[in-house]
Amino acid sequence: MSKIVMKFGGTSVATTEKIAKIAHRISREKEKGHDIVVVVSAMGKTTDDLANLAFELSEAPNKREMDMLLSTGEQATMALLSIKLQAIGVDSVSLTGWQVGLQTDAVHRNAKVVKIDATKILNLLAEKKIVIVAGFQGVSDSGEITTLGRGGSDTTAVAIAASIAADICDIYTDVEGVFTSDPRFVTNARKLAQLEYDEMLELANLGAGVLHPRAVEFAKNYKIPLRVRSSYNDEEGTILKEEVDMENNLVVRGVAFESDIVRLTIEYEVPFNGSLASIFTTLAANHINVDIIVQSIVDGVKPAVSFSIKKESLAEAITVLESNKQMLGFTFADFEVGLAKVSIVGSGMVSNPGVAAQMFDRLRKENIPVKMVSTSEIKVSVVVPQNDMIQAANALHDEFGLALV
Amino acid sequence: MSKIVMKFGGTSVATTEKIAKIAHRISREKEKGHDIVVVVSAMGKTTDDLANLAFELSEAPNKREMDMLLSTGEQATMALLSIKLQAIGVDSVSLTGWQVGLQTDAVHRNAKVVKIDATKILNLLAEKKIVIVAGFQGVSDSGEITTLGRGGSDTTAVAIAASIAADICDIYTDVEGVFTSDPRFVTNARKLAQLEYDEMLELANLGAGVLHPRAVEFAKNYKIPLRVRSSYNDEEGTILKEEVDMENNLVVRGVAFESDIVRLTIEYEVPFNGSLASIFTTLAANHINVDIIVQSIVDGVKPAVSFSIKKESLAEAITVLESNKQMLGFTFADFEVGLAKVSIVGSGMVSNPGVAAQMFDRLRKENIPVKMVSTSEIKVSVVVPQNDMIQAANALHDEFGLALV
Repeated sequence: MSKIVMKFGGTSVATTEKIAKIAHRISREKEKGHDIVVVVSAMGKTTDDLANLAFELSEAPNKREMDMLLSTGEQATMALLSIKLQAIGVDSVSLTGWQVGLQTDAVHRNAKVVKIDATKILNLLAEKKIVIVAGFQGVSDSGEITTLGRGGSDTTAVAIAASIAADICDIYTDVEGVFTSDPRFVTNARKLAQLEYDEMLELANLGAGVLHPRAVEFAKNYKIPLRVRSSYNDEEGTILKEEVDMENNLVVRGVAFESDIVRLTIEYEVPFNGSLASIFTTLAANHINVDIIVQSIVDGVKPAVSFSIKKESLAEAITVLESNKQMLGFTFADFEVGLAKVSIVGSGMVSNPGVAAQMFDRLRKENIPVKMVSTSEIKVSVVVPQNDMIQAANALHDEFGLALV
Repeated sequence: MSKIVMKFGGTSVATTEKIAKIAHRISREKEKGHDIVVVVSAMGKTTDDLANLAFELSEAPNKREMDMLLSTGEQATMALLSIKLQAIGVDSVSLTGWQVGLQTDAVHRNAKVVKIDATKILNLLAEKKIVIVAGFQGVSDSGEITTLGRGGSDTTAVAIAASIAADICDIYTDVEGVFTSDPRFVTNARKLAQLEYDEMLELANLGAGVLHPRAVEFAKNYKIPLRVRSSYNDEEGTILKEEVDMENNLVVRGVAFESDIVRLTIEYEVPFNGSLASIFTTLAANHINVDIIVQSIVDGVKPAVSFSIKKESLAEAITVLESNKQMLGFTFADFEVGLAKVSIVGSGMVSNPGVAAQMFDRLRKENIPVKMVSTSEIKVSVVVPQNDMIQAANALHDEFGLALV
């Protein structure tokens, strides 16, 4: 008998039919004798629909009230799921964020979990009830409803798993697990049986979806085994843990990619004078996310810095930079659109210095020009022309033997 | 400067456009210098939609979970209204039932208000904020979310008005006030400027809609002046109070009617032996609402009792009666469908014994047969053929001079 947390995302609870299916799935797990806590998201596009109503009323809706509004989505799902479980004879009880004692800080729309008082959950589990918890929401010190921001329900699931010392936290979703790459674009992509937390973190940050980075980080910190699996079948999915078993230990474990990248280049008329930091501080203050930054100072050449941003931030980035030109002391040089980022991820890279070289070599053979490079201990990202993105991803997937089990 | 409670029903907040309109209306009241608490219902048909989802999952959804589900409707409305108020520069804050400290008993789906701790509301009013409270919901001693049942938002408004000693509780709705009769069917029906709580109670119980009887009773007990008025214009509406002013003091103040009534008649083979109570206990245990009951025992005639129920309960009533025939000791005699109930209401009746006679006389002149009669101190109800209902209502409206101001 284990303590398990089962988390179901919005797609998995989008209709009453789907909620009914999930109820039966939970019932089957219960029959195995497990103690079960379920965490649910809002049904389908409910959160977006509610947010749209708010934006019809205000360009910048008050964040406290947005939390009040959005937190209703998960509350409705958990009640419906509990109604179905009881209809099929499974004893259950649903709890909101404040009822479950999920304490957060007071940062509305992006609150951080401070602590969870597990007493209530543990008492209900002892009564052999299934406990259903609303994902994404908590309560602040002063009794205000808060929400955890994007991917918040994953974070709720992991935080609750940590608080009750669960044996595993299962994240049920509409994919079968974490793949070596996106199977819609990379022909030979296959599901990974295991993956390390840090690798998942890199993949998640690189846009490989599936799991929110905050949830992965939480699981890593509390050493909660996290499993990503399908809501629609009983396949094992992908288990995230601290260190994967030897047989799974490939050097590169995943290829991620992201389109619609823009590179901006800034030149300095005078030698570099410390304004580099100011540029990025200014961009950050305007909520423009900068990804890769490359700087090179060559004698006789004007100092310059290149950095990448998402396409949708371009107009605002240019406005911000132009209006702060004087203060920042640069001449705006150039931007290039139509770019994409392709990354390889794997914790084995740390001890394999040749990985980046092998990557560049393969891209050269494929005649794909590399515009920018960024490396970390467990990943290498390159910026390439967007038209070459899929070819690059497939080539690298092949190059590092990811299609082989 | 007054303390006022403004309550808006589901129709008044059905869309974001309507919420925006209401925000402007509240803002205008605020500019007059009032302290304002707003109570809102769920948007349009939200409550029904949520309930339908639950019934897709279960024939008899768990009541605790239904409260969890349905209470999200009001929470969403109040957040949206607060977002709009802040967008137009009016400081506001929304509060759920548990946040506002609206304590109820633990009877899910039909909870009664136990007490309200007004401290939080009064503090927020002192900060010159508009306080928006979710109608229809509260919290039990053990921290469970409860709902107050049909008309619950009206009850919330009145209860809050009582707790903060408000000067008036305004119920905004899609009609302009309480009418002498339903203007859709009674040509000369007109809006009443004033009405007594008890009269409103009778009218509400007779299906004249507008206000829920519980809310009226609450207002009566706490002597809160209650005003029913339109969300769409600035007309004065109808004020409910303990005693109306002399000039408004008509003997009969309203004509109510209700279609789809069925009369059942039961005969006893043996003289009445106490099973009368058993019949109605049995019906009540099966949630069949019995309205008018008429019994007559005439020498030489078999004892019989007639009672009226709603058409939709007929099939179940017959099943219940047939299956308990032996135990109840009767022979089922007869039922008559296609009936309607027409009632006259007015507190002046108590001191005017001729009112019922005048009513019967007029109906006789109109050739409308009276099938059943029921009287109370301030109303007389008759059951007539459904085809004659509108004619009867118009005739009585005319007979008691209700068209004259």
